[in-house]
Amino acid sequence: MNQFGTLYRITLYGESHQPAIGVVIDGVPPGTPIDPAAIAADLKRRNPPLIGTTPRKEPDAVILTSGILNGVATGSPIHAMIENKNVRSHDYDHLKAQPRPGHADFVAKMKYGGHQDPRGGGRFSGRLTAPLVVAGSIAKMFLPYTFSHRLIQVGSLKDMDQLDAYLTDIAAAGDSVGGIIEVRIEGVPVGIGEPMFQKLDAALSSMMFAIPAVKGVEIGTGFSGITMTGSDFNDRFIAATGQTTTNHAGGITGGLSNGNPIVFNVFVKPTSSIAKGQETYAYDTESVRTLAVKGRHDVCIARRAGIVLENAAAIVFADLTLHHRASKPL
Amino acid sequence: MNQFGTLYRITLYGESHQPAIGVVIDGVPPGTPIDPAAIAADLKRRNPPLIGTTPRKEPDAVILTSGILNGVATGSPIHAMIENKNVRSHDYDHLKAQPRPGHADFVAKMKYGGHQDPRGGGRFSGRLTAPLVVAGSIAKMFLPYTFSHRLIQVGSLKDMDQLDAYLTDIAAAGDSVGGIIEVRIEGVPVGIGEPMFQKLDAALSSMMFAIPAVKGVEIGTGFSGITMTGSDFNDRFIAATGQTTTNHAGGITGGLSNGNPIVFNVFVKPTSSIAKGQETYAYDTESVRTLAVKGRHDVCIARRAGIVLENAAAIVFADLTLHHRASKPL
Amino acid sequence: MNQFGTLYRITLYGESHQPAIGVVIDGVPPGTPIDPAAIAADLKRRNPPLIGTTPRKEPDAVILTSGILNGVATGSPIHAMIENKNVRSHDYDHLKAQPRPGHADFVAKMKYGGHQDPRGGGRFSGRLTAPLVVAGSIAKMFLPYTFSHRLIQVGSLKDMDQLDAYLTDIAAAGDSVGGIIEVRIEGVPVGIGEPMFQKLDAALSSMMFAIPAVKGVEIGTGFSGITMTGSDFNDRFIAATGQTTTNHAGGITGGLSNGNPIVFNVFVKPTSSIAKGQETYAYDTESVRTLAVKGRHDVCIARRAGIVLENAAAIVFADLTLHHRASKPL
Amino acid sequence: MNQFGTLYRITLYGESHQPAIGVVIDGVPPGTPIDPAAIAADLKRRNPPLIGTTPRKEPDAVILTSGILNGVATGSPIHAMIENKNVRSHDYDHLKAQPRPGHADFVAKMKYGGHQDPRGGGRFSGRLTAPLVVAGSIAKMFLPYTFSHRLIQVGSLKDMDQLDAYLTDIAAAGDSVGGIIEVRIEGVPVGIGEPMFQKLDAALSSMMFAIPAVKGVEIGTGFSGITMTGSDFNDRFIAATGQTTTNHAGGITGGLSNGNPIVFNVFVKPTSSIAKGQETYAYDTESVRTLAVKGRHDVCIARRAGIVLENAAAIVFADLTLHHRASKPL
Repeated sequence: MNQFGTLYRITLYGESHQPAIGVVIDGVPPGTPIDPAAIAADLKRRNPPLIGTTPRKEPDAVILTSGILNGVATGSPIHAMIENKNVRSHDYDHLKAQPRPGHADFVAKMKYGGHQDPRGGGRFSGRLTAPLVVAGSIAKMFLPYTFSHRLIQVGSLKDMDQLDAYLTDIAAAGDSVGGIIEVRIEGVPVGIGEPMFQKLDAALSSMMFAIPAVKGVEIGTGFSGITMTGSDFNDRFIAATGQTTTNHAGGITGGLSNGNPIVFNVFVKPTSSIAKGQETYAYDTESVRTLAVKGRHDVCIARRAGIVLENAAAIVFADLTLHHRASKPL
Repeated sequence: MNQFGTLYRITLYGESHQPAIGVVIDGVPPGTPIDPAAIAADLKRRNPPLIGTTPRKEPDAVILTSGILNGVATGSPIHAMIENKNVRSHDYDHLKAQPRPGHADFVAKMKYGGHQDPRGGGRFSGRLTAPLVVAGSIAKMFLPYTFSHRLIQVGSLKDMDQLDAYLTDIAAAGDSVGGIIEVRIEGVPVGIGEPMFQKLDAALSSMMFAIPAVKGVEIGTGFSGITMTGSDFNDRFIAATGQTTTNHAGGITGGLSNGNPIVFNVFVKPTSSIAKGQETYAYDTESVRTLAVKGRHDVCIARRAGIVLENAAAIVFADLTLHHRASKPL
Repeated sequence: MNQFGTLYRITLYGESHQPAIGVVIDGVPPGTPIDPAAIAADLKRRNPPLIGTTPRKEPDAVILTSGILNGVATGSPIHAMIENKNVRSHDYDHLKAQPRPGHADFVAKMKYGGHQDPRGGGRFSGRLTAPLVVAGSIAKMFLPYTFSHRLIQVGSLKDMDQLDAYLTDIAAAGDSVGGIIEVRIEGVPVGIGEPMFQKLDAALSSMMFAIPAVKGVEIGTGFSGITMTGSDFNDRFIAATGQTTTNHAGGITGGLSNGNPIVFNVFVKPTSSIAKGQETYAYDTESVRTLAVKGRHDVCIARRAGIVLENAAAIVFADLTLHHRASKPL
Repeated sequence: MNQFGTLYRITLYGESHQPAIGVVIDGVPPGTPIDPAAIAADLKRRNPPLIGTTPRKEPDAVILTSGILNGVATGSPIHAMIENKNVRSHDYDHLKAQPRPGHADFVAKMKYGGHQDPRGGGRFSGRLTAPLVVAGSIAKMFLPYTFSHRLIQVGSLKDMDQLDAYLTDIAAAGDSVGGIIEVRIEGVPVGIGEPMFQKLDAALSSMMFAIPAVKGVEIGTGFSGITMTGSDFNDRFIAATGQTTTNHAGGITGGLSNGNPIVFNVFVKPTSSIAKGQETYAYDTESVRTLAVKGRHDVCIARRAGIVLENAAAIVFADLTLHHRASKPL
């Protein structure tokens, strides 16, 4: 439901246009130094003033109400809350009759019997990724691993130096594009992951698909390994540490980290809310008509989703690293 | 760990060469007719007498020891056990000094301090997918959905009519290939899935990556949607039922089923155990030398993995369908 | 950890003297009318202006930040927060050298390596029962059962009409007393509870012992049934509804509700923080010396614990009632 | 449901008269020596040839099918199965029309829509405590604590030297009695238990109430502490280790072990199945008539329940000890 993890366990709450969103984080080792500036920096990376990202800029000040004393984690759950300040709910009035193609409007209404909060996408909004970033930021404070990410493709563009111009054109057309992001984690020891169903890749992908707009996850070489034979794909060991010549496996074998860098790609689909007209169903007339979505939306969510994916991965590593502590041999 | 699901909850046990493997299945609705012949048929599809599949053919007789009376589920957990009969453990002696490239031998030894059962890959063996098939088979007995799968690519081959010849060549080279399998579920009502972390796609991908050799999951159009714009990618509604003109989303929006067929692709990597020599590390000499893996292995696991993926998906749908029952409006 | 339940799942956070305490509540059926006045009334019952209860009177204004729209539950998690306003942390300075007998000071310091928040008992404070009351209050808004409780004994006093005078004497002596509270739930249908480990009595007792100061739970006749024979203890059926002549079982058989009123007793120990001097260990001198606990404490927590127990029970019934929905026959 | 624990996690299956009962045990630290003779000894203590215990004597041979290699745990789940051999299902025919007073017959039928296995009490049978004993026996193999139990009262009898004569009289009257059992665990370090909802006492009581016939749990002095004041009840510290002068708290403060022996009492009700006639409802005539229960039943389950409670406690300590490993300070 709204929880992820068993030992590093996070509980999210909030909707896009309600008073606040937040997260309760359980399992931060007592004594972990908590750095609010690092959290703020990660949140800023999630909402940068770049071409192609939403004009809705929330201050995203994080209120920490519990679990921290004298700058370190006490061992009690940490609660982080962010107020929603910059809401323009009337932007969504025109969507009552016409659910947006590609968006959760329709399914949410059906599942919750019309009781869901439809404003700004409600709980299905990308806004919920802000507390996810907070929880990942705190995870990184006690994990001795290095996390990073990079955008490797946006639409048909592979040269990221031309991104501003490319997105300016897409925006001018009232359209949107998706992207592929590579996430990389270095310094992970051998053995992180718990078979059978808490395998590292299983947990990572589960977390990635929990993030709005994600439609694909591949580990290491992934789908492009389809044309390789086993003798090409297999990573050969060259040391007792598990170091391999290649890293087609993306650092994960049998669902466990294998001592090489963890690398995986995530496909983020084009933003579904676009200004360009779309012929789609309307409840009121019971027929198809053109919808042009209003409101403030990203032309390319992928441009700012990287830190979300990176920090979401950190949450997974926090949980499985604590599990690894617990499952060690006698 | 070894469990998946909360309401339809399965618990796996077993290793490749120990006396038995099995599964405990909790949450089968009381009164569900249990058909052992359907289970046997699914297990046979997992181990077909086809070119490119392992010569280890287990009888895979399922022993049902509890939870069934007069042919229907009692409401107590169902326990299904399969004995391992056709084991040749000495085939694995040569792997003590040299962990197989691409296989879990190395990580398992490191994680379990050398106490793991290395024979036949132990718990990391594909053998564990047999009880998974059983649990999925039983899930299908009470779910009113239609499950299917098909192989869409094997290595560089896209025309499945030529598969026997293609795999014969690969086998002759002592090599292996991977495959891409499409899984399809029809008849799913709107709203299956529980945000934020039990989204339908999150749960499906988590389950898929739990299956050995899976290295990629994409929903609907997936990664190939990268070159599409939002106006192309968005599926337009044409009816109040949620029916859409296209299905780029693979039947899942906002993590919930949207009334259209559920479609996703899974990449199964080339089998790591190959007869062809590989230069890889040896513990005894602390240097790299050639390893040619003995034993009975699949040339292309993807050829018989489809039923595993399909039934694994059924387990996910069983769990989330019961959740949907529980989360309905007042 | 800080969570209870799987379908009606609550997540607590907070410490006694940190900025806020609160709860995230998942699983409230969409459409449930949420009445803030009922929550406030329950919180007031938890902190009444009665003899023998703590002089720390918090306003306990509940801030609801999510999960509610137009007065009804949306299906998203509800977050309720209560600020800690009336804190006097210096009252606790004298406890740094001497852990209070009977209190969690000592164990908390040991478990959390000294990083815990010791002020006001930190997370071990009875203050954390306020969000528990909120979660129970909301549970009662969709459960068609009748919840009640009554104090049946305080110290050696069984006539509750004399309670004020009795507690005035105890207070004058700088001492404290415990109490036994009966909780009663009526209108519960047959079958609530999930064997083997989510039996109704197992879940209820687990919840009760999570509440500070609880040291005993008995269902129905409980321990005093020890001198009865089976022929006396057994409740005889008199109707097809499951109605019985007596209710020694307290309405629970085989871990399931049996159609009769649910009745159980809870023993709340005497408050550990007392003004009366106690000879106990001091870290600084490494010897035993007298400790007189300062601060504002209850003479008899049991006097105001009833609503906590009652609402905590409501949380259990909410979770198991949703489970009962999910586990119904095909 | 049928699972207990998160890190030492057990999954039970089986009914009284189906082919087998068993347990899957996850979380045994790799390298733990597994001693089948110790398991057999504990099972024998559960089914001793004593006056007042059931004449149904099962051989209870444990079949271990996975998770053990060369006498030690591999890190994979251990599966233990026990076949039901000595069943006399026809003994239960007369109960179809008349549910036994005090037994789960009635509630099981209602909950499972008549699909439950009624023979021998089905899954509600005390028979399910056999795999629980196995799981506890294995827990004790890696826990460095000392577990014990003793019967402190049976019916109105407190002098256990007279037990055989007392139970012979009860049996002659076709009746039954209950008992109170004290469980004691020594050598537990400070801090075992995870607040708020996995407190040691919460977890222990939850487990105890999962065992058939348990109707009360009290920690330390428990209910008889009602007449004590705080100054009497509080255990005073006399050393930096947490050692106290008295142990009214039963070794648990704030839900955590406090360094003193863990002591708690459990009330086991009189056996509900008695030969003596009881006036109770009959479905067929829709009226009350006399029922004399046939079959083989214990006169006093408490006489052999001690090892069940003790080993069930060991399961709790195994889970929380692994949690303590995971939650230690940075």
